[in-house]
Amino acid sequence: MIVVMKVGATTKEISGVISRVKALGYEPHLSEGEERTIIGVVGNGNVREYREQFELMDGVERTVPVSHPYKLASREFRAANTLVPLNGHKVGGKKIAVIAGPCSVESREQILEAAHAVKEAGATALRGGAFKPRTSPYAFQGLGEEGLKYLAEAREQTGLPVVTEVMDPALVPMVCDYADVLQIGARNMQNYTLLHAVGKAQHTVLLKRGMSSTMEELLMAAEYILSHGNTRVMLCERGIRTFEKYTRNTFDINAIPVLKQRTHLPIIADPSHATGHWEYVEAASQAAVAAGADGLIIEVHPHPEEALSDGMQSLTPERFANLMKSIKRIAEAVDRTA
Amino acid sequence: MIVVMKVGATTKEISGVISRVKALGYEPHLSEGEERTIIGVVGNGNVREYREQFELMDGVERTVPVSHPYKLASREFRAANTLVPLNGHKVGGKKIAVIAGPCSVESREQILEAAHAVKEAGATALRGGAFKPRTSPYAFQGLGEEGLKYLAEAREQTGLPVVTEVMDPALVPMVCDYADVLQIGARNMQNYTLLHAVGKAQHTVLLKRGMSSTMEELLMAAEYILSHGNTRVMLCERGIRTFEKYTRNTFDINAIPVLKQRTHLPIIADPSHATGHWEYVEAASQAAVAAGADGLIIEVHPHPEEALSDGMQSLTPERFANLMKSIKRIAEAVDRTA
Amino acid sequence: MIVVMKVGATTKEISGVISRVKALGYEPHLSEGEERTIIGVVGNGNVREYREQFELMDGVERTVPVSHPYKLASREFRAANTLVPLNGHKVGGKKIAVIAGPCSVESREQILEAAHAVKEAGATALRGGAFKPRTSPYAFQGLGEEGLKYLAEAREQTGLPVVTEVMDPALVPMVCDYADVLQIGARNMQNYTLLHAVGKAQHTVLLKRGMSSTMEELLMAAEYILSHGNTRVMLCERGIRTFEKYTRNTFDINAIPVLKQRTHLPIIADPSHATGHWEYVEAASQAAVAAGADGLIIEVHPHPEEALSDGMQSLTPERFANLMKSIKRIAEAVDRTA
Amino acid sequence: MIVVMKVGATTKEISGVISRVKALGYEPHLSEGEERTIIGVVGNGNVREYREQFELMDGVERTVPVSHPYKLASREFRAANTLVPLNGHKVGGKKIAVIAGPCSVESREQILEAAHAVKEAGATALRGGAFKPRTSPYAFQGLGEEGLKYLAEAREQTGLPVVTEVMDPALVPMVCDYADVLQIGARNMQNYTLLHAVGKAQHTVLLKRGMSSTMEELLMAAEYILSHGNTRVMLCERGIRTFEKYTRNTFDINAIPVLKQRTHLPIIADPSHATGHWEYVEAASQAAVAAGADGLIIEVHPHPEEALSDGMQSLTPERFANLMKSIKRIAEAVDRTA
Repeated sequence: MIVVMKVGATTKEISGVISRVKALGYEPHLSEGEERTIIGVVGNGNVREYREQFELMDGVERTVPVSHPYKLASREFRAANTLVPLNGHKVGGKKIAVIAGPCSVESREQILEAAHAVKEAGATALRGGAFKPRTSPYAFQGLGEEGLKYLAEAREQTGLPVVTEVMDPALVPMVCDYADVLQIGARNMQNYTLLHAVGKAQHTVLLKRGMSSTMEELLMAAEYILSHGNTRVMLCERGIRTFEKYTRNTFDINAIPVLKQRTHLPIIADPSHATGHWEYVEAASQAAVAAGADGLIIEVHPHPEEALSDGMQSLTPERFANLMKSIKRIAEAVDRTA
Repeated sequence: MIVVMKVGATTKEISGVISRVKALGYEPHLSEGEERTIIGVVGNGNVREYREQFELMDGVERTVPVSHPYKLASREFRAANTLVPLNGHKVGGKKIAVIAGPCSVESREQILEAAHAVKEAGATALRGGAFKPRTSPYAFQGLGEEGLKYLAEAREQTGLPVVTEVMDPALVPMVCDYADVLQIGARNMQNYTLLHAVGKAQHTVLLKRGMSSTMEELLMAAEYILSHGNTRVMLCERGIRTFEKYTRNTFDINAIPVLKQRTHLPIIADPSHATGHWEYVEAASQAAVAAGADGLIIEVHPHPEEALSDGMQSLTPERFANLMKSIKRIAEAVDRTA
Repeated sequence: MIVVMKVGATTKEISGVISRVKALGYEPHLSEGEERTIIGVVGNGNVREYREQFELMDGVERTVPVSHPYKLASREFRAANTLVPLNGHKVGGKKIAVIAGPCSVESREQILEAAHAVKEAGATALRGGAFKPRTSPYAFQGLGEEGLKYLAEAREQTGLPVVTEVMDPALVPMVCDYADVLQIGARNMQNYTLLHAVGKAQHTVLLKRGMSSTMEELLMAAEYILSHGNTRVMLCERGIRTFEKYTRNTFDINAIPVLKQRTHLPIIADPSHATGHWEYVEAASQAAVAAGADGLIIEVHPHPEEALSDGMQSLTPERFANLMKSIKRIAEAVDRTA
Repeated sequence: MIVVMKVGATTKEISGVISRVKALGYEPHLSEGEERTIIGVVGNGNVREYREQFELMDGVERTVPVSHPYKLASREFRAANTLVPLNGHKVGGKKIAVIAGPCSVESREQILEAAHAVKEAGATALRGGAFKPRTSPYAFQGLGEEGLKYLAEAREQTGLPVVTEVMDPALVPMVCDYADVLQIGARNMQNYTLLHAVGKAQHTVLLKRGMSSTMEELLMAAEYILSHGNTRVMLCERGIRTFEKYTRNTFDINAIPVLKQRTHLPIIADPSHATGHWEYVEAASQAAVAAGADGLIIEVHPHPEEALSDGMQSLTPERFANLMKSIKRIAEAVDRTA
């Protein structure tokens, strides 16, 4: 951390900062300019914790952190890609993982039909929500445990591992019983009680970026899970909230190369939520793979026009099968497979 | 809801929509223009649920909701201001409530010192966090139940009711035992498990707007709580996330008159988070009261330069006492008291 | 346009709206529900102009526009892609156009070196700024006409057409004398005096999206140029402003398929500005082509570490040559060439 | 400026930076930590210009600017408030200036009626647009010079100085002939050709913040005007673009105390654009004055329901007269007058 003193800070103010640095167990490095003094704070420990305290000291203009706040999630901590096992593949490796299925589990028939369809088209895993976070309390909230049972049955029939959202920390053990991957939804990215619960569960996690979270906050949320020794974490870019109205969200495609550079964790893209309209899902999927995504999570519904949620952004099985073909071509163009 | 058909929609497509409207138990109202047909969907029930289904029907261009999605929270449902009892006052009435105290409970001494100071300056209630949602897992996470005990002791000594955050649905009953008002933090505004839990608790709730939530989403979050028959809900505008960098958040002052028009619930402003710098808290507080806020929640720390969180935006007791004076003057200028 | 009346609007209020609709030369279509009356406004002409007037009439809750506000730019107006000639190619056709060169023309040597380098790597056109819009009046503002002369010399030597920004409406004729394509920068997207001037000039235009403009506003800005009968307009997505801090802008990749669906004009992507860091430019370029962009505009500087502007996001000629290779592979994967 | 070296930067890389600092005429101040070396760059001159160049040098992680980029606009340059003369008052002094009138000049009758009405209610100056920046080329674009003549006539009849927008740099002299204050609209805040033109004109300027401009960018835009020796500049906060949909813009009330702290220039608030709905204009005006604004600019139309632009956010003369009364009360509560 660097402490930038105000122009005209007094000797007393400067030595006040120096004393405080030493008292906290760090080493001060003084750099006196003609106008202004700058004090480097050097040492081990989480000096960031004291940023605001230094900023409130007399004579201090501001502080500047030098290192980033995430550790276990960083490439510095682990240079090689973390490979997360999923259905015999390793997400983060050469092959693009494709998680597909409906937004919500609506009935046994619906999820089984969806599961067989996405399996046939070449999906790696099945998605489907049993617990749904809905803006309105009057909207369909999911089938709950019944939905989890249908998902498990779909896995049995197709062999596809199941990805499903968990919202209630108390239900993490139950969801673990049925699901292969616990999804943390965008609205819960900073629900720390839940992050701790899935961290402890030692289950694979798909962590979605909050709709207005920075990439740094996403990495810090991952850090919560990693700090429990649970390293099977996949990050998911699913679009952020902006002023643009023609799409449901703005797909932050930059996040893919930026996160790949900063973290060893695999990056999954969600073109369904990132666009909000099925017409754009294929183009966005192609873009994601071209930009370096390790996988995709895509909403597929056997009958989108009857979907109880997210019908607008759901592909029919036919369109999904076409998408799989176009994705394969892009994957090859970036020396990967799908 | 209105269904707007595409230019050139066929008779078959139009009658398809009409049949669907009837099948769902609604009444269709046809309006045929030269170019385009429009179908009004009339009746009781939550027709919004079917918006996407209609949008995916052949010949449909889009749908337009006519009514707003929140009900119990609306002025239409209840025209008169809801008055929430707090320390013998009624929040939402003529008197401005001022909730003040440190971001976190750091020690018994600190919270008692803060409580006495804000009491003396005229605060209505005491705030202080025992469970802290922190971006970093390495940052101070709060004292937990120990902190709640210190808050209860502060209440005993000062008579000030206690406002404190709850993050874990499982801990709602415990927090209710100690606190007078349960605060739902910005990061948890759409944590529906938690909203249900506090709804059931029948305890007074302070619901903070998510940092990138629309006002409509805030009202829908309140709806979750209200749907449990818990009507003691205060809404809190605490700043939203924008591109501006000179302040921690952008204080959406418009939210005050807009929410007052749309809902009967009281509106509290949080100028500490909305600005992020103590220098601007007084101006922002004055603005909030002038715009019609029913209350303020303000961070006050006996020694901001030693605060374990949010020191930058905390007022000293002295500055808070000055703020109380300036707030009183503004309150009088809008025919209220503070 | 649809006029939605308030619940409980009186007969008098409804007939007031009907009279006004007729007085303006439109035809009203009444749809009376049990609760609420809706009035469709049908006819030719720009009824949107009167939206606010209707919204202010007694008994009116709000109005809903049915058609979009741009006409000449829309796919409805012209279904086939507009092909804009550039260096013997047709932008908007099968081949991806690549416009490359430095942010600013800094010297004769620099621009000539850059021009030869990008030519050799396979660029379609040369970019370079002679008039620079800079946030600070103390920053390098460009070489002005001298820069234009160097650009013209570079064109002579390489055969590459020249793309350069014009900021001053009075200088449009001069810039036309030197340049093949007039660039309207993001900051000037809604500078209507300038849009009229380039519309009149009947010169090819590259119109950049404003950093916080919606796609609809971009199409409306194009409409200004098209309304002068100037149809050689290319739109450019260059990133939008959001809360994210790890990148200079957020690349709105969705804009590519959305704009391709709504307009017949070619879409160029600017991955240099959209990311702000050269490390991410290749990934973003690949994503843009995969999503359907008709071209790219990329900053290339012979010596980025000496650049007077935008060095951070400039590629070296070597990196640009590599990018051209990876782009070709993606182009083939979407049945195009580069 | 501070240059932060990477962990493990070599001696050669460090001395490379030091040599470059010296070569540019600055003095390097070395601070070697155990892990990392930091180099302060000290001296006079605009070292910011070289930021990106340093960031691209081998071994450099990033650079941190120490001082802010605006100079003439800063409180450091001029500690006392700049007082801008307007109608015998001094904007920036104790009295709140209120500029009022219609969005557009629509006819001689309309502007004269408006002028007399706002004069009577106590306005300081008259606003009215003769040149209108409209999103659509099909919308009313203003009466041009004819409108300016009507404004001048209104001034003659009422004594109110005239505030009007100028969009075309070539028309600055003409607009100066008729108007007392040149308004730079939000869309033109970074139209540098126009900023230079009004800077040279030595006329009073009202500079509106761009709808997605940071406060720093607003100050830099002011710097363009100030750099011509034209110091009669008033800044205007008129709302910024966010994700919120219930209001046209988000009124950044924080900008008022923040700008007052950073600059000596007067700050005007525009509650009409900042809210977009007349119902909220009074509350927003009260908030602005309570937060420390030096003035207001408010849209008032004799017949909002017939307005050719911005009818929704226009007050009737009656409502404006009421607003003036409530503003006076707030002004007194902050020891000012209105």
